[in-house]
Amino acid sequence: MALIVQKYGGTSVGSIERIRNVAERVAKFKALGHQVVVVVSAMAGETNRLIELAKQIQKEPDPRELDVLLSTGEQVTIALLAMALKDLGLKAKSYTGGQVRILTDDAHTKARILSIDEDNIRRDLASGHVVVVAGFQGVDAAGNITTLGRGGSDTTGVALAAALKADECQIYTDVDGVYTTDPRIVPEARRLKTITFEEMLEMASLGSKVLQIRSVEFAGKYKVRLRVLSSFEDEGEGTLITFEEDTMERPLISGIAFNREEAKLTVLGVPDRPGIAAHILGPIAEANIDVDMIVQNVGHDGTTDFSFTVHRNEFKKAMAVLEKVKDEIGARAVIGDDKIAKVSLVGVGMRTHAGIASKMFKALSDENINIQMISTSEIKISVVVDDKYMELAVRALHQAFELDKEGVAA
Amino acid sequence: MALIVQKYGGTSVGSIERIRNVAERVAKFKALGHQVVVVVSAMAGETNRLIELAKQIQKEPDPRELDVLLSTGEQVTIALLAMALKDLGLKAKSYTGGQVRILTDDAHTKARILSIDEDNIRRDLASGHVVVVAGFQGVDAAGNITTLGRGGSDTTGVALAAALKADECQIYTDVDGVYTTDPRIVPEARRLKTITFEEMLEMASLGSKVLQIRSVEFAGKYKVRLRVLSSFEDEGEGTLITFEEDTMERPLISGIAFNREEAKLTVLGVPDRPGIAAHILGPIAEANIDVDMIVQNVGHDGTTDFSFTVHRNEFKKAMAVLEKVKDEIGARAVIGDDKIAKVSLVGVGMRTHAGIASKMFKALSDENINIQMISTSEIKISVVVDDKYMELAVRALHQAFELDKEGVAA
Repeated sequence: MALIVQKYGGTSVGSIERIRNVAERVAKFKALGHQVVVVVSAMAGETNRLIELAKQIQKEPDPRELDVLLSTGEQVTIALLAMALKDLGLKAKSYTGGQVRILTDDAHTKARILSIDEDNIRRDLASGHVVVVAGFQGVDAAGNITTLGRGGSDTTGVALAAALKADECQIYTDVDGVYTTDPRIVPEARRLKTITFEEMLEMASLGSKVLQIRSVEFAGKYKVRLRVLSSFEDEGEGTLITFEEDTMERPLISGIAFNREEAKLTVLGVPDRPGIAAHILGPIAEANIDVDMIVQNVGHDGTTDFSFTVHRNEFKKAMAVLEKVKDEIGARAVIGDDKIAKVSLVGVGMRTHAGIASKMFKALSDENINIQMISTSEIKISVVVDDKYMELAVRALHQAFELDKEGVAA
Repeated sequence: MALIVQKYGGTSVGSIERIRNVAERVAKFKALGHQVVVVVSAMAGETNRLIELAKQIQKEPDPRELDVLLSTGEQVTIALLAMALKDLGLKAKSYTGGQVRILTDDAHTKARILSIDEDNIRRDLASGHVVVVAGFQGVDAAGNITTLGRGGSDTTGVALAAALKADECQIYTDVDGVYTTDPRIVPEARRLKTITFEEMLEMASLGSKVLQIRSVEFAGKYKVRLRVLSSFEDEGEGTLITFEEDTMERPLISGIAFNREEAKLTVLGVPDRPGIAAHILGPIAEANIDVDMIVQNVGHDGTTDFSFTVHRNEFKKAMAVLEKVKDEIGARAVIGDDKIAKVSLVGVGMRTHAGIASKMFKALSDENINIQMISTSEIKISVVVDDKYMELAVRALHQAFELDKEGVAA
């Protein structure tokens, strides 16, 4: 007998029929003798519907009241799922975030979980109940309703699994696991049986939106066994997210992430002296613009070029900020390009193997793809290329590293 | 400066535009220096939508989970109204029933309020906030969400007014007060400036659905000054519901209530001996059928006839119960009719004046309307007539008692 936390996203509970399917899946796990806690999101479309209502009243809805509004979405789902479970003859009980008590800080619309009181849930599990918990929501110390931000239901699932010391946290979604890359771009893309937390973090932040990044951090911190599965298939093991130390031998490369939501900006002819990077990025941060890649090469003739990427939506705003900064620091010019894509090779194996980078650059060069920026970490290499070459770059790299074949990579 | 509790029903908050209108009305009261607590229902149609969802999953939805589901309706409204108030530059804060803490018993879907913790509301009022509270809902001692049943938002409003010792509880609805009878049937029907609690109880229970009956009982018990107003008109004083002792002189008759939702049943030739009424009504109560009027006349030849009315939906079920009872008690036959209507004359004045009943019966007789049953209380006389004569009976009585003229009646 195991204690399993299952999390179902908005698409998986998007209709009455799908809620019934979830109930049937839960019943199967109960029939095997497991204890089950189910975390659910709002039914697909509901959160957007509520946001639209709010925006009709306030252009920038009050954060406290927005949380009161949005939290109703999951509350509807927990009630309906608990009914569906009871309709199958199971004992079931629903909990809002406040009822569990999932205590968060008071940062409305993006709160962080501080603690979870798991006593009621344990008591219900012991008496044979399936416990259904609203994802995405909690309460602050003053009793105000808070939400964890988009994708927060994953975090709720992992945090509950950690608090309950669950044997596994299963994240059900509309894909059946984590792939070497997006199968829509590379048909040969292969589902990974396992992936490390670190790789998953890189894959998630780089745009493979299978899991919300904060939930992965949470799982890593509390050593929660996390599995991604499809809620639309009855069979399949999904992808297990592991700790690196679990696995003796790893393929060098796990996958290829990509992202065409960024734009790059370069300040040319920057005086090469201490403090200049802060002088450029300070005003960008003050304008609330998030920066992703930052590249600065060695200078010559006392000047250097300084490049970074931002979200494409912030491109114009960032350019305007830099135009002012340019004169202050005496730089030569500011140039930018919002027709770029970032392609990243991810794998814990690469940190101990030379030659990955050169193999990557050669594969791109063979396709005549020019590399505009390069940035590396211990387990990934990211390059910026022209937007229009993105798919080609992903396919070329997938083939070069033989990611379609299990355990063969590099 | 007064402390006012305002309650707005589902129609009054049925759209974004109407929620804005409510916010503007509240702003006017704030501008006059009053403290305002607003209680709101779910947006019109929302509760029914949620019930439909539930019934698609369970034919008889689990009561605990139904309350979790339905309570989201008002939660959406409080958030949107608080946003609308803030959009007008007011300070505002929303509370669910659980957040206030409106403590109820654990009778899901028809819970009763046990106590209200008004500390947070008082603190917010003192700091200049408009406090927006979800009607219809509370929590039991174990923290489960409960609802008060249909119309429960009125009860929430009155209970809050009592707990806060508010100067007035204003119930905003889609009519501008309590009328002598339904203006759709009698165009001359007149809005009453005042009505006593007792009359209001009779009017409400008899089908003048302006206010939920429990809220009126509550208001009477805690001496809450209650006023019914239209949320669609800017002017108008509505109808003030008073304690009888407030008013030195009262018109004899306040209004005419009516109801065509009942059916009558008669057990003929019942042995006229003690305990027989209990023997007939016991099985009816066990079948969970509510009984309204009960009439038994003096017997002759050792038998009597026993009649009562039930809701029309329960007619067949009640007939089936009586068929069994008939043989047990040796009655002659059971007859029934679900094509009846009840028409009632209501007024505290009538208790000290003879002749009201005979005037009523004569008015009906002048229209050739046969009276099938009669039942009286201190402040009302009800008759059962053939369904098809209902409107005619109401109009005849309205004219006979000159209810279109203020203070002239009888």
